[in-house]
Amino acid sequence: MRSPAANAELALLLEVAGTPKPGNVDRHRDLAELRFEHFLAGAVGAREGLELAADGAAVGPAFERAVEEMAAQKGGNTQFGALLLLVPLVRAARDDLSQPVAEAVVRETTVGDAASFYRAFDHVDVGVDEPPADMTALDVRRGADAIPALEERGLTLFDIMERSVPGDDVAREWVRGFDRSFGAAERLAEADGTVSERTAAAFLSLLAERPDTLVATRHNEATAREVTDRAAELVADDALETDRDTVEAFADDLVDRGINPGTTADVTAAGLFVALEHEAIEL
Amino acid sequence: MRSPAANAELALLLEVAGTPKPGNVDRHRDLAELRFEHFLAGAVGAREGLELAADGAAVGPAFERAVEEMAAQKGGNTQFGALLLLVPLVRAARDDLSQPVAEAVVRETTVGDAASFYRAFDHVDVGVDEPPADMTALDVRRGADAIPALEERGLTLFDIMERSVPGDDVAREWVRGFDRSFGAAERLAEADGTVSERTAAAFLSLLAERPDTLVATRHNEATAREVTDRAAELVADDALETDRDTVEAFADDLVDRGINPGTTADVTAAGLFVALEHEAIEL
Repeated sequence: MRSPAANAELALLLEVAGTPKPGNVDRHRDLAELRFEHFLAGAVGAREGLELAADGAAVGPAFERAVEEMAAQKGGNTQFGALLLLVPLVRAARDDLSQPVAEAVVRETTVGDAASFYRAFDHVDVGVDEPPADMTALDVRRGADAIPALEERGLTLFDIMERSVPGDDVAREWVRGFDRSFGAAERLAEADGTVSERTAAAFLSLLAERPDTLVATRHNEATAREVTDRAAELVADDALETDRDTVEAFADDLVDRGINPGTTADVTAAGLFVALEHEAIEL
Repeated sequence: MRSPAANAELALLLEVAGTPKPGNVDRHRDLAELRFEHFLAGAVGAREGLELAADGAAVGPAFERAVEEMAAQKGGNTQFGALLLLVPLVRAARDDLSQPVAEAVVRETTVGDAASFYRAFDHVDVGVDEPPADMTALDVRRGADAIPALEERGLTLFDIMERSVPGDDVAREWVRGFDRSFGAAERLAEADGTVSERTAAAFLSLLAERPDTLVATRHNEATAREVTDRAAELVADDALETDRDTVEAFADDLVDRGINPGTTADVTAAGLFVALEHEAIEL
């Protein structure tokens, strides 16, 4: 049986292999500078940090380690957001991989965990928004330089996540008990076909549900909304089953326009991990 | 920097992702019952055994562990042969990843390593030939049942490999100082393009060089020879650069005919590992 760390790494690999995943790197699509093999290397690199979490390390240091080694490839940020979901979920799996336990794990994070989180930004460029005015000193793009301000205010990693909602649906998972991640696992279990087909179905349904916050950050709210509306039409038409070419065309169109729903991919990866751990999908 | 075990796992992933790889599962091709995601799960599963080898465990037990966890997916044998090359190479990398050190590692294997190797066959179905008449008691398909005969004759794992040549080009690597594996690393370094493109080029040139022994086992010598001759024509025409469609058609044709040059893939994976460790390819 695969260990939780192995399942988390496998979830990262299955996520990127799932196709079509409109706008993102998938088994059949690369971006100009960010290719499939960067995601393979990112997943392999993340394993050590995931093992730390599985062994009971604190969430922040395990996350920082996972990110540092994930970033040891030339594609840039591949799985930062996914790891921010997977690390606490792997930590929860030591006890029981349920929403209440995952919620307890993140609520128990410390100021030290928050400091590790800030240090993680020194290892890789992450697409984030301008912080609110009262949070300038805590801009994550400052990396470790923001740690004194963080310690002065006594903010835990959970506090930081709470302040990132709305606007970051990875942070929202922390605050809402990983609701969409566990929901994604259910969708993966209920979908038909191979794991790749189930992944594509779960991704599209998540994209149809809420505008992707990475798209909103990198482009704007209207673009994120447009993408979600289109995804919702495709889901309503059951297009993955009945008109797959249209979904493939949508995927190509988003890649061509540089619109990459990365947050939706992060939640998909978290869902794959939960589904693997619960043996709700088999491969 | 990635550890040797991480690089070995990444080599397995890059090997299966490389495309076109005529006859085998690749980024764009699945077989009927053996899909891309089975290889992803196989590579993730192998990691623990590879870590054992990196930590100095004996080759046989590390290999058996890698195979056992590699096989924890429903596709069947994905990377048995590749692991038989990677485990001693990872072990060698503790000292120095060179042909003489790799050769010393395999020549120092024991009867105990051979017993572990036989036990590995209990974990997964591997495509192997009938043994020679004087080796019936040592038929690997007997798995652990063959261990008493093995111990009685005092055969080490190296001895077993020596007796498998010719007819098994993975075993041949053990006996010939991993000559083609290191040669494949040089080809990967010298080829142009992305790692996927380099992998496709190295695979085709290996296939053009010697008939694949898995094809000879599963089909016959003539089929293996025909495939190699065709690969040699494509290499002579520089077809991957000048007429890629023809290589893609050859790849599809072999998949359709159920001709899977798995030994060539194994050597390609070993070459990828050496190239990653020597930083001869970057990604």
